Order: sequence, then C-alpha cells, then structure tokens
Amino acid sequence: MAKEGTEMTEETEHMIEKNGAKETETVVSAGDAKEMRAVILSGFGGLNKLRVTKKAMPEPQEGEVKIRVKACGLNFLDLMVRQGNIDSPPKTPLVPGFECSGIVEAMGENTKGFEIGDRVMAFVNYNAWAEVVCTPLDYVYNMPDDMTFPEAAAFSMNFVAAYMMLFEVANLREGMSVLVHSAGGGVGQAVAQLCSTIPSVTVFGTASSFKHEAIKDSVTHLFDRNIDYVQEVKKISPEGVDIVLDCLSGENTGKGLGLLRPLGTYILYGSSNMVTGETKSFFSLAKSWWQVEKVNPIKLYEENKVIAGFSLLNLLFKQGRCGQVKTVVEKLFSLYNQKKIKPVVDSLWALEEVKEAMQRIHDRGNIGKLILDVEKSPTPLVMSNSSLENSWPNQHRLRFLDSTKSDNNEYIFQLHWFLW
Amino acid sequence: MAKEGTEMTEETEHMIEKNGAKETETVVSAGDAKEMRAVILSGFGGLNKLRVTKKAMPEPQEGEVKIRVKACGLNFLDLMVRQGNIDSPPKTPLVPGFECSGIVEAMGENTKGFEIGDRVMAFVNYNAWAEVVCTPLDYVYNMPDDMTFPEAAAFSMNFVAAYMMLFEVANLREGMSVLVHSAGGGVGQAVAQLCSTIPSVTVFGTASSFKHEAIKDSVTHLFDRNIDYVQEVKKISPEGVDIVLDCLSGENTGKGLGLLRPLGTYILYGSSNMVTGETKSFFSLAKSWWQVEKVNPIKLYEENKVIAGFSLLNLLFKQGRCGQVKTVVEKLFSLYNQKKIKPVVDSLWALEEVKEAMQRIHDRGNIGKLILDVEKSPTPLVMSNSSLENSWPNQHRLRFLDSTKSDNNEYIFQLHWFLW
Repeated sequence: MAKEGTEMTEETEHMIEKNGAKETETVVSAGDAKEMRAVILSGFGGLNKLRVTKKAMPEPQEGEVKIRVKACGLNFLDLMVRQGNIDSPPKTPLVPGFECSGIVEAMGENTKGFEIGDRVMAFVNYNAWAEVVCTPLDYVYNMPDDMTFPEAAAFSMNFVAAYMMLFEVANLREGMSVLVHSAGGGVGQAVAQLCSTIPSVTVFGTASSFKHEAIKDSVTHLFDRNIDYVQEVKKISPEGVDIVLDCLSGENTGKGLGLLRPLGTYILYGSSNMVTGETKSFFSLAKSWWQVEKVNPIKLYEENKVIAGFSLLNLLFKQGRCGQVKTVVEKLFSLYNQKKIKPVVDSLWALEEVKEAMQRIHDRGNIGKLILDVEKSPTPLVMSNSSLENSWPNQHRLRFLDSTKSDNNEYIFQLHWFLW
Repeated sequence: MAKEGTEMTEETEHMIEKNGAKETETVVSAGDAKEMRAVILSGFGGLNKLRVTKKAMPEPQEGEVKIRVKACGLNFLDLMVRQGNIDSPPKTPLVPGFECSGIVEAMGENTKGFEIGDRVMAFVNYNAWAEVVCTPLDYVYNMPDDMTFPEAAAFSMNFVAAYMMLFEVANLREGMSVLVHSAGGGVGQAVAQLCSTIPSVTVFGTASSFKHEAIKDSVTHLFDRNIDYVQEVKKISPEGVDIVLDCLSGENTGKGLGLLRPLGTYILYGSSNMVTGETKSFFSLAKSWWQVEKVNPIKLYEENKVIAGFSLLNLLFKQGRCGQVKTVVEKLFSLYNQKKIKPVVDSLWALEEVKEAMQRIHDRGNIGKLILDVEKSPTPLVMSNSSLENSWPNQHRLRFLDSTKSDNNEYIFQLHWFLW
C-alpha cells in the first residue's frame, strides 16, 4: 500500500534530498504504475521548502476514490500551510493541496458511486498537488459536462465557501449589501457572481488598483485595498452594509463589525494579514489571537449584530459536514449549468512552477484562481521576456504583466526568475 | 398638547404624591377627554415604585396614531426597566410598556394609513401601559379579524422577536435543532410554535418543572431549568444543536456556544439572569459585561460558529428598522390566519394589578404571556382563596394555582397579597 504525505518512508525522504535542485525538472509519464509526480513541502518555511519529486503511487482504501489528477486549486491557505501558519499544522514532509479535478481511475474495495473514467471534482485533506490522489467518496462529485478541469479545480473551495457564507451563515436576500476584501481573488470573484444571482444586491469590494479595470464589472463599488475602505463605504452607504466577508483578520475585524447595519453579519473566513513575508512568521499565529479584538456578546445584543467564523476545511475534515456540502455543490452545479456562475481562472501552472504561482498569490497578483495544471510542461528556467510572452497562454501572460505595473517592474520580474 | 412620560408637569407629579395609596383604586371613565389612567414608574427600584394614576390625555403629533388601548403586553424586560437595569435608562417618572393593542381613536395632522375605529396592534417606546397611547404610524399594524386584543398584545414582541431570530438571524431550516430557555414564557412558546411550521425541527426547552405538563406538547425535549441542560442535550444529541436562543446571559453564553454544532448560531436576546431580587441591583449591569465571556473571532473561525445579539426594541426605536419588522409582522399574521400559530395568553390583569403580574413574571410562574387588560376591574385587595377562585378568569386562576404548587403555597399567596 502506498505511503502518503506524513507517512513517507526514509527511502522517499532520501530520494528528495538526493535529487536536490534537479528534481523540479523530473517528469514521470502518467502511465507509470508505481510512482507519480507530486509537490512536496519538506518543512515549514519559504518557497525553497517546495519541490517536485517522485512519490509512491497511492492506492485507494475502502471507501476511497483514486483520481488521476488533471488540475489542482491553489489557495491563500496553501501559503499559510507552507509557513506552518495554521492551527495544529501536520507533520512535514507533506504534499499540499486541498482540491483537484480529474478522472476516476480506481475505487477502493466495496466502494460504489463512481465509474472508472468519471470526470470528478474533489476535496482532499492535503495531497492534492500530485498526479494521483485518493480521497473518501464523500468528498468527490461528478463534474458538469461543460465544466473544464481547471474550472472544476477553481470551483470547489471558492464557490462552496462563498455560497455557504452568503446563504447559510449570512442569509443573503434581495436588496442587501456585501463587502468583500480581495474582490479580485478566487473567493472574491465567487462572491461577486453569487451576489449577482440575487436581485438588487450591492457589492463593495477592495482590491489592488491594477485589478480594478479587469474586475470593475463584477462588483458595484471598488476601492483600493490600501485606502480607508470604512470611510469610502460610509460615503456611499452611511448606514453600513449587511454582510462583511473578511479574509484579512487583525484590525479589519473591528472595522468590519463597525460597518455592519443592524442585523448585519460579519464573517471571518481567513487571516491572510498574518502572512507578512516569505519565511515563516513564528509568532504570527499566536499574535493574531491577541490582535483580533474579542467581542462582547452584550455589545452584539445592543447593536443587533452577528459575528461568525467560517472554515470550509474544518467543516469538511474535522466536523464531518460532507452531506451539507454535497447539497451546496449540487445547487452550485445547477447555477453553473444555468450559466449564472463561472469560475474565473487566473492562470495555469505546471507542478514545477508551484513556487512562482505561490509568489503570485502572495503578491496578490491574481485575478481569480491559480491552477496547477498537472499535464502542463514547466516553463524553461531561463528565458527572455519576449520568449516568455510567446510561450505563455495569452490570458496568463496578459494578467501577469498587468500585475507588475509598477516602477520596479523589472525588479519584480527578476525576483520571479530567482524564485524559480 | 399632552405631556408624556418623561415630561410630566409638576402638577401631575404632585397629584401622584397626594393620591398616594388610594390612587390604585381611581378609575377614570374611557369617555373622559382630558385625563386617562396609566401605570407610573416613579423611580427605579422595587414594586413599590409602580402605581396607577391619572395622567393628561396624550394627543397625536404629526405622523402618530392615537390608540384607545385594550390590552398591553408585560415582558421580562419591563422588570429590568423597573429596576433601571438597562442600557441608558430613561428618566423617571415614566409610563412603562412597549406593546399594546386597541382601537384607533385619532390620527395626527397629515397622517394617513388608518381609519378611526381600526383594530390595531402597536409597538410603543414606553407609555403602553395606559388607557390611551400615541405612537408613530410605522409601529402600528391592522390586526387580523379573528385576533383578540389580548392575543394581539401577546403577539407583537414575542412572535416578531422569535421569527426574526429563527429566520433572519439564524436561518432555521428543515431538520435543524433549537435550544430555547424559558420555554414556557412568551418568547419560548412563540419559538416552539414557529419551529413547528418547519418540518422535522427538534426543539429542546428548559422550564421550571411545574410547567412541564402544560407545555410538553409544544417542544420535543423538556428539561428542568435548574439541571445541567448541557449534559442533557448532549445525551440526546451528542453533536449539539443548530440554534441556541439565550435570554439568560452570564455563564449560559459559554454553555450555549459550547453546545453549537458546526455552522450553529447562538443568539443572546436578553439577560434575565441579571435580575436577582426585587430591588435594583446597582452593579448587575456593569457586572454582566464582565461575567459574559468575550468571544475570539478566530475561535469562531476554527469552530465554524456564529454568535449574534438580538434586541427588538433597539431595532425598532434606535435603529429604525420598522420596514423590516413590518414585513415580518405581515408574514406572522399570514401564519396566524392559517392557524399555524396562536399566542398563548397566561393571564389577564387590571392595570392596578401590575405589581402582582410583575411578581409572577419575576417568579417565572407564567406559561405564555401576561397581559394588562385595561378594561378589567382590579381584584379587591383583601379576599379569601375561595372568592379569588370565583372572581378570576378560569384560565388565569388555574394557572396561578398551578404555579404555586409547593410546600409553602400559602406563604406565596400571602406574599402576593402583601405586594398588592
């Protein structure tokens, strides 16, 4: 039986070390039955802790589905995992990644519900960033026929989280208003699209200014992420908003609560402000507990306010709410089939490009979702700007260039080369 | 123009003092155009601060409706007002009471929307416990034809609060579970009835044991209010419940949060544990701020939990959400007309019996709502048990006797006489 992430053999460990810098260029054919390519996080820290290597092929346990992965989603949370900046981090080495799409290749013993060859979208409790992954039946969903693999990998976490926050935690209805940070990100774009399915919903979004042109049609009011969004929102809506979705944490919690209209709901669904640099911020997790203002329930009573936390991963993997999530996925697929929602894919990256992809999400350069395309060949390590423009998919190239509109444009490019 | 509650003239003040103990027997005919009977709270404190007296007849301002009051609701909150145990208490003397039903007698200048003679239910920002009250148009609703005046006075605050908490804050859906304290009280019974309009909702209730027989059919599981309800709920539902409605505050906040299932909502809608005795507890309001455990949003994130506060009065009178409340009232009247809900009236009391009624709610003796029936004659001060049984409405008498099932039955009766 295959050894997974936290249970790697000494032999595998040794292999990672021996392969060293060259392993990012290793490509194993999909037909190899005993080994597969996977992204390995060797320890918590900077980008240098990530590498692609061969790993024993996993085999499905009873109740599990074995998936030949086509595309994986990359989330801000993966950055926090890399830095060890999460509650109860697992042991390293591990294979990161919580979501993927692909084709069913096998089923565990006594496991029914899927056919070999089914196109599926899946949640995985780590191990998604690999050519093959096994995950319990309950986390696997047949994809709509029209959905591409990158779309499916961009869909699962972002749309499920956005839907549950808007409709199950906050009860979004006609005429309400929503504030979402990182409006250009994967969750932000999912929120904007889902809000558009309800009449007369006003969406306030914050995003880096260079994204405004690209996303301006998806939200009602856009503010630069560095300005005082509280004042800007109040200029337009003095009473505040009905729903605040906050992935930043820190001082934004107090600001978000302050912006709520009566009966409004503030939802904390991440704490990306904890990630400050490339290396692990050892104290940031502990610090965040102190920095976030604690809330007195009697104040909520006087002000008629609601405060909520939402963590999809905990819901799925610690709290066993697969049934509820399955119902949400079905509703979302129905909206997708009606062409009311459509995941926004920022760019596709080979597994070997994971560091660059991660840097891009760290720099908040993305508009929509970053996808690891398992079948994509890595971009050559050394290339001129012109050859880069020719070799990258058009969408990817344009957005990447867009994201580096700044005075030190060249520096940013050099930094990215270095990270590769 | 009439002087209201906090603006009483010296003359009126003088009258209250002069009339002294006898004023509780004063009865002014409904036809008197210049004066009316009203309950006056002369200062914050015990029951002795309450008395019935004559007061100048109020006249409607522009945008106001003048109502000939038939019935008023008595809430636990009125006790807290009497003790001055609320945030920013108004000045005394004042006329207590936040809800009533009656007949439209006049409208302010340029005010439309009601006809003289309309049967209405109304919210009032104090001043309800009187023969006549004026309140802004937005707080007045035409009653369903089949609804009695006591039912309407029992309906407004309790059903609106219960509905908004269950469906607008917490998003109650099929198959969910709800824990409600004081299940025999006005809000408790409204919550139980509204839960029964949704399929497969499990209601856990706490109530004094003597009420269990009377309310056992309205909730799924009943626990004595003095036992460890956390353990009892967990025995039946180890995962906890989806919604906790807490009117007690204090340590119950932590317990309630602990009982929540993932995505569950805890709602604090009162803090009746602050009321400990007959006289004002000077430090209890401040203390409650310290006793209630403050909540860390990051813990909510990790546990997928929601905490909310709900105050209908603040929503109505400080936060101007009349429009939203009006929509809720319409939905509730529709449920009433479909005979899906029906307010439970515990007992009817004359204005002059307000002290005894308040003592009953303080002792948590009521099942459903206590109503001040403005047209009811006060029970004579001295009477034998047998004449008491003959003179009281049957429902009232039975329930009152029921509530005093204890070894010191006679003592309780004597206490009540004394309070009168």
